Amino acid sequence: MRAAVFLRPRHIDAADRPDPVVVEPTDAVVRVVVACVCGSDLWYYRGESPFEPGPIGHEFVGVVEDVGAEVHNIATGDLVIAPFAYSDGTCPHCRAGITTSCVNGGFWAVGGIDGGQGEAVRVPFAGSTLVRVPGSGHSAETMRSLLTLSDVMGTGHHAAVSAGVKPGSVVAVVGDGAVGLSGVLAAKRLGADRIITLSRNPARQELARAFGATDILAQRGEEAIEAIKAMTDGVGVDAALECVGTGEAMATAIGVARPGSTVGYVGVPHGVELPVETMFFRNIGLRGGGAPVRTYIPELLDDVLEGRIEPGRVFDFETDLDGIAEAYAAMDERRAIKALVRLGTV
Amino acid sequence: MRAAVFLRPRHIDAADRPDPVVVEPTDAVVRVVVACVCGSDLWYYRGESPFEPGPIGHEFVGVVEDVGAEVHNIATGDLVIAPFAYSDGTCPHCRAGITTSCVNGGFWAVGGIDGGQGEAVRVPFAGSTLVRVPGSGHSAETMRSLLTLSDVMGTGHHAAVSAGVKPGSVVAVVGDGAVGLSGVLAAKRLGADRIITLSRNPARQELARAFGATDILAQRGEEAIEAIKAMTDGVGVDAALECVGTGEAMATAIGVARPGSTVGYVGVPHGVELPVETMFFRNIGLRGGGAPVRTYIPELLDDVLEGRIEPGRVFDFETDLDGIAEAYAAMDERRAIKALVRLGTV
Repeated sequence: MRAAVFLRPRHIDAADRPDPVVVEPTDAVVRVVVACVCGSDLWYYRGESPFEPGPIGHEFVGVVEDVGAEVHNIATGDLVIAPFAYSDGTCPHCRAGITTSCVNGGFWAVGGIDGGQGEAVRVPFAGSTLVRVPGSGHSAETMRSLLTLSDVMGTGHHAAVSAGVKPGSVVAVVGDGAVGLSGVLAAKRLGADRIITLSRNPARQELARAFGATDILAQRGEEAIEAIKAMTDGVGVDAALECVGTGEAMATAIGVARPGSTVGYVGVPHGVELPVETMFFRNIGLRGGGAPVRTYIPELLDDVLEGRIEPGRVFDFETDLDGIAEAYAAMDERRAIKALVRLGTV
Repeated sequence: MRAAVFLRPRHIDAADRPDPVVVEPTDAVVRVVVACVCGSDLWYYRGESPFEPGPIGHEFVGVVEDVGAEVHNIATGDLVIAPFAYSDGTCPHCRAGITTSCVNGGFWAVGGIDGGQGEAVRVPFAGSTLVRVPGSGHSAETMRSLLTLSDVMGTGHHAAVSAGVKPGSVVAVVGDGAVGLSGVLAAKRLGADRIITLSRNPARQELARAFGATDILAQRGEEAIEAIKAMTDGVGVDAALECVGTGEAMATAIGVARPGSTVGYVGVPHGVELPVETMFFRNIGLRGGGAPVRTYIPELLDDVLEGRIEPGRVFDFETDLDGIAEAYAAMDERRAIKALVRLGTV
């Protein structure tokens, strides 16, 4: 098969890789239909986090091609969503919903596991990892939205859930990448009344509004904090979503959170230092981390299939595997919000 | 009147201070019956945090001696509990229950306000700050428990609430000071099934058991983490309470918290650095801060008056104002868990 391969920073290309086969009786082999590039892949692409040369990518939707003898819940021919981590579904952490901490689980493209940006993937614990999509003949729009449930929409949802967004909440979202925009959509879906988003990019501003943002601010850092304080009569917001992972984004989120509220954070931290005294004296909580998206897929899937949310609108760039280098470059240069890679057909 | 006065680190003594009077129409003057020394006072006593020379102390129970024209809810002669912060009860933060962030509020012994370790106190926003204790003729035991609602019991409760303790929880409490012991009692009161406490001191161990601890560990740091992991089949605890404020205590609390759980922290941070990457990859949340004890007093008061909890058992040292220096020394040297200062009679 052909798959994207990370060679070194700024060098990702399509290459030949062994065809995956069922090894363990709990495995499945999935033929990938659509995959995509994640903002977190850019940390490797830019050389800001180490990454072993080899397969890459962790978001995909595909069709089950083969299953081991002990795979239940899914069968050959099923259209399935793969969350960005595989998990056994039975360990204490999985039972508590924190599938990203599964004691037997792991991540795509790590430790000999196939990457998601390729034509096929061997999926461990396939019965508990994959989620079957009911129905058939889904539109291209629906397929894009299903793909976001692999990571970005579930991650935005995790930020909103971790921050405690509820009906009537006043929310601030720091970050206008695909995760931040998904955070806007998730906050709206959870009933937020007012959603303040930080963005300077017209296309992202427009999508933020379409997803439910009521206010868009071009300011950053201290200026953004002052502006949001002024907009909330000096109180701050009920819930702040940190969707970037930088020190400045975290400082902004903490700075706008009202006393007693919680910052929901999902940006992989890079250079973040938490101001524990400020947090203590203002009773600002912090919750979040790598989103246990497997847990969230079922409830979000219903909303996608019934047309209540369209998270697939974050994709504004599309290519095939031969265009993988350009997909990374477009995201790196912020020409694209999120790049989809088409690998096959249903 | 006479009151404790902080002169410089390790020098606290009784001295003459002006008799407080009603200044604002929302003030009351309270004649103090019992006060106490807080673990957080020791940061000043030891010179580890700066403190202006002058009155000190922030926990007291007393009798209302005079009220301003606009004071409602309380009247002369009432027995009242003072939370460790005064608050107007009407600002957005008070309405949200975070009375420690009151926009017009403040703290005892700061900025010209009387300290709690003295014969009388002018109480700003008396109607919203003070909580009237119903009934009369309360026993010495009940008076001690009422005094804990000023700070220590509400603070332990804040740790437990912030950590999300609920019926059936497995809880770890880091810290065997009066706050940690109150955290044990609060966790038990909220229905925790198993409460693991770190303590090496026989008297504190005994009180921890009386308050509901099911397991006592003498280990600290990495050894404590390993022991608690082993006791929980490698999973960690559902809720960890950090009740010290040091870097080691926080690292222990984070280390034993299971993925997806929250550390409830109430120790004033001194040298705490939060390991944001560890927290992110294990989805460990952090909530807490200065406890909004005013919000908690009514519900805890019922339990004290009806005898369901006896938080006053944390007091194992009692003196009068002339013994104030010894009260600090006894706590500093860990000869006392918590020192009560008797100033008057009901």
